[in-house]
Amino acid sequence: MKKILIVHAHPETQSFCSSLKNTALEYFKQQGSEVIISDLYGMSFNPIGNTSDFTVLQSPDFFKYQAEQTHAFKNNLFEQQLKAEMDKLEWCDTVIFNFPLWWFGFPAILKGWIDRVFAMGFAYGAGKGVYDNGTFKDKTAFLTFTTGGPELAYGQTGKNGDLESILFPIHHGMLYFTGMTVLPPFISFSPARLDDEQRIQEIKRYKKYLSEIKKSKPIYKAAN
Amino acid sequence: MKKILIVHAHPETQSFCSSLKNTALEYFKQQGSEVIISDLYGMSFNPIGNTSDFTVLQSPDFFKYQAEQTHAFKNNLFEQQLKAEMDKLEWCDTVIFNFPLWWFGFPAILKGWIDRVFAMGFAYGAGKGVYDNGTFKDKTAFLTFTTGGPELAYGQTGKNGDLESILFPIHHGMLYFTGMTVLPPFISFSPARLDDEQRIQEIKRYKKYLSEIKKSKPIYKAAN
Repeated sequence: MKKILIVHAHPETQSFCSSLKNTALEYFKQQGSEVIISDLYGMSFNPIGNTSDFTVLQSPDFFKYQAEQTHAFKNNLFEQQLKAEMDKLEWCDTVIFNFPLWWFGFPAILKGWIDRVFAMGFAYGAGKGVYDNGTFKDKTAFLTFTTGGPELAYGQTGKNGDLESILFPIHHGMLYFTGMTVLPPFISFSPARLDDEQRIQEIKRYKKYLSEIKKSKPIYKAAN
Repeated sequence: MKKILIVHAHPETQSFCSSLKNTALEYFKQQGSEVIISDLYGMSFNPIGNTSDFTVLQSPDFFKYQAEQTHAFKNNLFEQQLKAEMDKLEWCDTVIFNFPLWWFGFPAILKGWIDRVFAMGFAYGAGKGVYDNGTFKDKTAFLTFTTGGPELAYGQTGKNGDLESILFPIHHGMLYFTGMTVLPPFISFSPARLDDEQRIQEIKRYKKYLSEIKKSKPIYKAAN
């Protein structure tokens, strides 16, 4: 974990979720790692996959997203902001997705980062494999997120269903799909309901998590 | 199914996915139902949940999304485009989400429709219940979507995992959470790989599905 990309998606810089992002930034810098942050709200990231992803279209009269992605990758036709995100992803060895869990998944601005950056030709397809043969086999990823509901609501018997099921489309369908090694998430339940002292304890718990994350057993890992 | 809202999210009007939307529009109109379409790409829907959801903020110095949603609902402070979507949702008895499956979920523009429209105070919370006591107990919803991958990849033994798991966060976490009755989805696998005649057959299959959907057994339904 020498080159870290933190993809951060929270609209409030003073939020506890943003503090978690800052905590990881400081921790990895102290470890001597390089850290790049994509602050999606801060940079007004456009999450809508569309013709505007491309500087030139192969087929302007009938837009086929995946075909244009493949064509754009071969011919270097991704628009500047999107290309910059792809460059960061190629550069890093570790990606941290830092976000509030909204409707049991990524906030739209972060889902759109996946829709656009994990482009066909770049992240998979056009000769590139998936899962055990995925493009990003040498990269590791994990989620750091906050929830609105309490931990009890997410257990095996909790009304929201268990977290493994909730996170399956992200862990398996997005990250492992591209070959990434997926490490267990850090979850901070209902920080809005904690007082200042409890939040300080949560930050300490996150630092401990970060110090042990390299040794943790992957949820998914491409077979060699 | 007298008042239908179709929330449609595809960037290409000529796509097969858009044809499915048109098929449902024609079918329900022929049945004498009223149909409203929210064409998210066509209307340049903003999917980013942020301060811009509100005409006035309760707490401009520290943005708490759910607190602002609750405050805005009580005081009629949602911005115009968002309020219009809420009005459509209140009006309808049935919602069809019509979209291409991107990264095992909604395209970002549609995820953002959920993030913003299913606002605290309006869709849940602030005295309103969830699941069996959900706000939208009188509404029914189902998904109509296309995939890139073939059907085999989505079976119990398929490499992508089974569809029930993939759809859990949407079916359970978004729709049933708000009390909606969730009917089985219509899925068109890999229409890009079909020829014209096969696509015509798929449209026929969709019409048959629509003619039988009212009688189908719900995946989730609020207990009375």
